[in-house]
Amino acid sequence: IVERSVTRVVTPGTLTETELLRSDDNNFVASLTRGDEGYGLAFLDVSTGDFVATGPDAAATVRDEIARFDPAEAIVGPDADGECFADDCMVTAYDPAAFADDAARGRVADYFGSPDAHLGGEAEVRACGALLAYAEYTRGGEGDGAGDRLDYLTHLTRYDPREYMVLDGVALRSLELFERRSVHGSEGAALIDVLDETACALGGRRLKDWLRRPLVDADRIEARHDAVEELVADPLTRDALGTDLADVYDLERLISKVSRRRADARDLRSLKATLDVVPEIRATLAEVESERLRDLRARLDGLDDVRGLIGNAIRENPERELTEGGIIADGYDETLDELRETRRAGEQWIDDLEAQERERTGVDSLKVGHNSVHGYYIEVTNPNLDAVPENYERRQTLKNSERFVTPELKEREEEIMNASARADDRELDLFREVRREVGEAAERVQRVADALATVDALCSLAAVAAQYDYCRPTVGADGFEIEGGRHPVVERTEESFVPNDLTLTRESPLAVVTGPNMSGKSTYMRQAALVAVLAQLGSFVPARRARVPLVDRVFTRVGASDDIAGGRSTFMVEMTELADILRDATADSLVVLDEVGRGTSTADGYAIAQAVTERLHDEVGAYTLFATHHHDLTVVAEALDGARNLHFRAARDGDDVTFVHEVAEGAASASYGIEVAEQAGVPPGVVERARDVVAERAEDAGGKDAGEGG
Amino acid sequence: IVERSVTRVVTPGTLTETELLRSDDNNFVASLTRGDEGYGLAFLDVSTGDFVATGPDAAATVRDEIARFDPAEAIVGPDADGECFADDCMVTAYDPAAFADDAARGRVADYFGSPDAHLGGEAEVRACGALLAYAEYTRGGEGDGAGDRLDYLTHLTRYDPREYMVLDGVALRSLELFERRSVHGSEGAALIDVLDETACALGGRRLKDWLRRPLVDADRIEARHDAVEELVADPLTRDALGTDLADVYDLERLISKVSRRRADARDLRSLKATLDVVPEIRATLAEVESERLRDLRARLDGLDDVRGLIGNAIRENPERELTEGGIIADGYDETLDELRETRRAGEQWIDDLEAQERERTGVDSLKVGHNSVHGYYIEVTNPNLDAVPENYERRQTLKNSERFVTPELKEREEEIMNASARADDRELDLFREVRREVGEAAERVQRVADALATVDALCSLAAVAAQYDYCRPTVGADGFEIEGGRHPVVERTEESFVPNDLTLTRESPLAVVTGPNMSGKSTYMRQAALVAVLAQLGSFVPARRARVPLVDRVFTRVGASDDIAGGRSTFMVEMTELADILRDATADSLVVLDEVGRGTSTADGYAIAQAVTERLHDEVGAYTLFATHHHDLTVVAEALDGARNLHFRAARDGDDVTFVHEVAEGAASASYGIEVAEQAGVPPGVVERARDVVAERAEDAGGKDAGEGG
Repeated sequence: IVERSVTRVVTPGTLTETELLRSDDNNFVASLTRGDEGYGLAFLDVSTGDFVATGPDAAATVRDEIARFDPAEAIVGPDADGECFADDCMVTAYDPAAFADDAARGRVADYFGSPDAHLGGEAEVRACGALLAYAEYTRGGEGDGAGDRLDYLTHLTRYDPREYMVLDGVALRSLELFERRSVHGSEGAALIDVLDETACALGGRRLKDWLRRPLVDADRIEARHDAVEELVADPLTRDALGTDLADVYDLERLISKVSRRRADARDLRSLKATLDVVPEIRATLAEVESERLRDLRARLDGLDDVRGLIGNAIRENPERELTEGGIIADGYDETLDELRETRRAGEQWIDDLEAQERERTGVDSLKVGHNSVHGYYIEVTNPNLDAVPENYERRQTLKNSERFVTPELKEREEEIMNASARADDRELDLFREVRREVGEAAERVQRVADALATVDALCSLAAVAAQYDYCRPTVGADGFEIEGGRHPVVERTEESFVPNDLTLTRESPLAVVTGPNMSGKSTYMRQAALVAVLAQLGSFVPARRARVPLVDRVFTRVGASDDIAGGRSTFMVEMTELADILRDATADSLVVLDEVGRGTSTADGYAIAQAVTERLHDEVGAYTLFATHHHDLTVVAEALDGARNLHFRAARDGDDVTFVHEVAEGAASASYGIEVAEQAGVPPGVVERARDVVAERAEDAGGKDAGEGG
Repeated sequence: IVERSVTRVVTPGTLTETELLRSDDNNFVASLTRGDEGYGLAFLDVSTGDFVATGPDAAATVRDEIARFDPAEAIVGPDADGECFADDCMVTAYDPAAFADDAARGRVADYFGSPDAHLGGEAEVRACGALLAYAEYTRGGEGDGAGDRLDYLTHLTRYDPREYMVLDGVALRSLELFERRSVHGSEGAALIDVLDETACALGGRRLKDWLRRPLVDADRIEARHDAVEELVADPLTRDALGTDLADVYDLERLISKVSRRRADARDLRSLKATLDVVPEIRATLAEVESERLRDLRARLDGLDDVRGLIGNAIRENPERELTEGGIIADGYDETLDELRETRRAGEQWIDDLEAQERERTGVDSLKVGHNSVHGYYIEVTNPNLDAVPENYERRQTLKNSERFVTPELKEREEEIMNASARADDRELDLFREVRREVGEAAERVQRVADALATVDALCSLAAVAAQYDYCRPTVGADGFEIEGGRHPVVERTEESFVPNDLTLTRESPLAVVTGPNMSGKSTYMRQAALVAVLAQLGSFVPARRARVPLVDRVFTRVGASDDIAGGRSTFMVEMTELADILRDATADSLVVLDEVGRGTSTADGYAIAQAVTERLHDEVGAYTLFATHHHDLTVVAEALDGARNLHFRAARDGDDVTFVHEVAEGAASASYGIEVAEQAGVPPGVVERARDVVAERAEDAGGKDAGEGG
């Protein structure tokens, strides 16, 4: 009977197996509680040790932060509910005892010292404490008597959502930052796909984190821009770093495995190989001038002691299996070396035996062999059995031969087996000791990993900027002033992309955008939002020149299609999103509205669009781009001081309609639809009648409908 | 060296392997040519022998017919091009020689007699001839010297597209007859899924064919309705038929395999098992009264000769492999029986040998055995080797025993092997002869298969009608008069479904349908089209009472979403579809328009909608349902003699909006959109302003915008 006990609980959020995880993205488990003064929300990546917490004061903020981190799993306290998590997130109501104030406080203190020094309030402490308890409960390990404590959890970072640009779930999805929305199965890229030129997994995760949380502090943003600028200007350094970083293994996950006693000898060699690169990277960064890069260089500790230990102790190309030897290097341990020598000598003796016995017996076909059941034997073919000496003992009869052993051979065999077994045990003991010692350096390794991650992310931004001709944006400006802006994703997939300008000022922050479907309205509006996001995460932007404000939040209402979601009216969803915007947008927000009010009567839809436009203009003052098919809205925009009209045109190209994708001041000509109908083969009488109807109604409306331009 | 030659070419359209085909659907290869007077278009299912041809006079009709049959593969002549085929259809420009007039004519004559007796014109003959050549080229077979001719191709049916309701690709897709359009990955059913209760593959394919080609001839439709009505009223007969039909194998594909010499012995037994059921089905149908069912009964030839032949010749549960015996029944062939007896006697002798030799030698542990390398042997363990008689010859030495043979044993072994080999050869010869004889009955088997397919399809229609409370529609009426109509697919998935009435008369054939999104407009309109399709394919319909006209074509323009297809403007696509409708619709067509003109300015979109409405009303006179958000259109409808308004309402239910899904006369109240905005949390000031805007504009437009109702 094999005794079994639970040594590990596997859940979606606490996976640590590298094979099961996307190397270039975090895999978070979230923890949510609710206290008297707000919520406590924490995210932990068990595989890397990334651990952050925040204390949102509103349910909407909780939802926004969850959308940012997109956890695979969540635990909730008895006072909170899991409805704010996505459908594909596994939510568990975890043991209330773990969320209890004292228990949580004690656990946080145990790991990180005084909770109050790290966290904002009681709900946050409870979220973090419970998350630690859960991580311990589900921990992986060899079951070799290690304690429950997770030594690699060395950092807990508290953040305030207001330190970052708010990107709610709607914005993340409609701007396609991380995931392409499927358009009928056709393939496509998300922003992260065109932005990620990182060389290692550490950098990949760092870049995703930056994209998840663009900054709102001009100094921090400019520090990144400085570093990117320096790397853009210095392709040699960038290339050298890229080459070095390509040799960097996933240090965070490696050291986490070491701490959890799940690392094998190859993991340690990978760790050493990475540390070997660090001095080279330091050297490459020797001449850098930007403060950020100099600071990163200073943090690149080579960890010579750890490198030396692994280098001395662990073989190159060690075995994956820990219990069968082949792990520890020669010369590291005297006892092990002696055991190996004994084994080697025994094996040599056996190797010599064949020649020796051939000579003694005069049988040239005599063979010494080994099989796994009977061990070593001397084999003599039937015709030669007469020559077998007296001390041979028969062990096995085959069709054409007999197999024998001798007392000496048995003795040597015994010796080899003993030495082997003891050597294997010794190797395992030594390995565990080395792994423990390496584990003690977890915090230092994590600091190096952190620095490498940032260097890689900055290099990636520089590489993209250089290759795709991005410019350094000025942040903190009083409005958007973009010359020759492009959509970073669309420009990669289209054969030719037409750049466009955008100006939105404090005085004139609102633009109504008209033009036919497919003319480029949606791309243009999303492009503005993406430029803002890129600039604030520290990237250069796809434009000839760009001045952008510090946007506190990007709102999008992009009515992509009449998708039916659980039978709920899409119009209701649309109005709810609109209400959120009108409630939460500030003068520093960027609002992108695409076709508001399509799910209802055109009269109501129009009225809502006009009322929303007026409210955004008169009271909110947010930077706003509003695409619409309601041409009457262009008349409204003309009458408002802080609003103006932009339009996209379609041109006729023989029998077909083509789009020039160029934005221009003023409202679009309203005659496009009927022209297309005509070209599509709608009978002339019907086309003529449609023209009459337009004219009649314009007249009826007292010229109100005749918004012209372009 | 193994000589290889091409014995078969495998292509998507000429697959015959049952494992690779959907048993319940046809797998067509199409052939297209163009002649002076029109097109030639043919479809062949190689696996079943279904072969139809038609001669469309316009490219649009070619496209429509291709959409109907949805071929997996197509060959085109030198005068035609393959652009009218779907993207997933493999199109080959096949050997022009095969399309040549003389060659094609000769080939068609060879199979079916005079081409002119079967086909409409030169282009059709060329399409069919080339398709026969292609089928021969790609034919499957044993390579046993069979000729190129495909004996199971016994029927070529010519049809005129005007014999059937036209269902173009747009209609097939938007009505979801065969395939559910994916709505963001959510699962769902197509019409065929809820309609198909057939018991066997034959019936499944027949039902699909009916759905692909609804009839336009009242007599033919009513003949099906009569049969369905009789089966609805007689659940006992229906159940009995269902039980019998469940034992029916895929007769068409079986006989096709037989003819192509690819059938094995189990296929023949399956064929017999099916023929065994036929008399029972005949008996079950003994009392039927409807002409159609009586005619079917008369066509149920039991094929006693074929059944007898297979029953006598082929074992029950024969081996799958043809070359290793175990196929032919005992008593069928004297020579085979003798060979088997020789083998049996030899084996018996060997069976007896062990006892006999134990007695002779006194060795109780003596064993007679067989192994595949050395054949039969007598085994004696080492301690008993002394007792081995003289006539034993040593054959093999094992560790603890020796194996021997005797001359008698060797002789018997030889005898058995000879008899076995000759028996196997004999069985294969006999089997091929039986298969050839069965193949000669191909045409009779196909007639039975055809009758069984129709009985199954009618039973399926009756089962659905009985289970889901469908009513028998009156066809050929002067308009639609549906009481308590339901959507056959949606009613299965929704917990409660609200039935609705529909009246469209010759005098008033057009209805403008208003109401908020999700209120039920789209379901209501599609339901009307589905009732028409169901009625004309011979089915009862989901309604309390239904009178429907004979619709020549269903047109749909359902602007589901702003899907981007290859960068082409969806608005352009929409207008092209609209142009097709205005060009081709007749007073006997049913036109379903959902939201025309959304991709352009609202002014243009409205004007086009109004002009189209007027054209359909004034000149086309088609039965038309037109859903719109343009409430002004309801005013237009009021002014037209043959038009009226229908609407769906939304109701407030506490904080949420619910839809009652009830259609009512008159236009929808236009105030819904702003109410929803209010409930969704749009600030009161904005809501109030929106109400003012609506009021102002209504006033400006001289009351034109104030369409009210419900």
